[in-house]
Amino acid sequence: MDLEPKQNIRLCVDAVVFGYTAKESISVLLIKRTIPPFMHRWALPGGFVIDGETLEEAVTRELETEAGVHINYLEQLYTFGQPERDPRGRIISIAYFGLVNPTNFKLAASSDAEDANWFDIKKLPDLAFDHSAIVETAIKRLRAKIRYEPIGFELLDQKFPISDLEKLYETVLDRPIDRRNFQKKINHLGILAGHNEKQKHPSAGRPAKLYSFNEERYFQLKKEGISFEI
Amino acid sequence: MDLEPKQNIRLCVDAVVFGYTAKESISVLLIKRTIPPFMHRWALPGGFVIDGETLEEAVTRELETEAGVHINYLEQLYTFGQPERDPRGRIISIAYFGLVNPTNFKLAASSDAEDANWFDIKKLPDLAFDHSAIVETAIKRLRAKIRYEPIGFELLDQKFPISDLEKLYETVLDRPIDRRNFQKKINHLGILAGHNEKQKHPSAGRPAKLYSFNEERYFQLKKEGISFEI
Repeated sequence: MDLEPKQNIRLCVDAVVFGYTAKESISVLLIKRTIPPFMHRWALPGGFVIDGETLEEAVTRELETEAGVHINYLEQLYTFGQPERDPRGRIISIAYFGLVNPTNFKLAASSDAEDANWFDIKKLPDLAFDHSAIVETAIKRLRAKIRYEPIGFELLDQKFPISDLEKLYETVLDRPIDRRNFQKKINHLGILAGHNEKQKHPSAGRPAKLYSFNEERYFQLKKEGISFEI
Repeated sequence: MDLEPKQNIRLCVDAVVFGYTAKESISVLLIKRTIPPFMHRWALPGGFVIDGETLEEAVTRELETEAGVHINYLEQLYTFGQPERDPRGRIISIAYFGLVNPTNFKLAASSDAEDANWFDIKKLPDLAFDHSAIVETAIKRLRAKIRYEPIGFELLDQKFPISDLEKLYETVLDRPIDRRNFQKKINHLGILAGHNEKQKHPSAGRPAKLYSFNEERYFQLKKEGISFEI
């Protein structure tokens, strides 16, 4: 609570949008910068907050103008405020993150970005600013988050074999899981409903039983929190 | 990634410092404002970030100048950015939080605050700005946090009966816990070392066995994360 000092700090938002499909690994949405600093380098979509808009509106707007995608369920990740993080001066970034199915989004680089694309998180190019550190923080948060929140609703097909859900957890955690134990815990949560229906085109072996999420229970647990040790 | 627009947004930090002692409930550190807006109202310690300092330096400095306390292990809580949250204009607050033992701190209101004090979180006065919402967010985070991080090291005596640790969990969660189950889970974590020593002045009943934290294991698990369902 000071008198009001002159402040020369500006405010940006950045978005870490992770993509996941059952066929691939985890990727992150990047745009190629058209202006300095870091011109022609890949970076997270983001930009300056406009005076009257909320932080969420700012990040939604930047994703639309830079990558042509509308994503409105991002959550706040962390605020990055190291004095040297931006060569243009003191610029603080409030980072948001989310996990989407990239097949639902058609990317379109606009005037603000010369290119927009998904990159495997294990093969990222050199990123502008401190964006590598922001991506790393987001990956850690994502890994922690699946231990206290159900995951998969927006990512898997409407009906899926339980192996698709296992694969999602293995991909996010980046390690194998004990499948029998996993199924026991998932059943215990009560978020899946089984169907009298099997896979039509199994990639290998016999067609597996199909499941879908029990939406009501899923979103109730997302709100209440779970404790899921795998 | 825009050209650089003129931005009329300023940046504050605010601190939610929770206090806990085995004898009392959970309290929060508040200061009484000496300047408008919300003059003479209770508020979280905080203020404008100075251009060259990190966000952590800013919140540490504000705690020192407003309440006379030095606390350097706060963590970032959330950034509050609603356009109408401050009547002085667009001011965004990056909130930090922590949990300390208030008996280790001697409060001293300075020129920046006419008073500084601990308030039971169940009996808070009307707070300035959106500080009630910030406190509420911090309480929720604290409750969630004790499920994936050990707690108590800075709060309990060096040697304590296990009932003190139970009481801490019950106070943070604001509900009774199953003590037998709790002790089993705490033992499983391996963060406690038992001593051949008993309480000297038990408040009731027979003197209880004393424990202390296994520091190495405690801080290892704080880093790695736990999954503690109670």
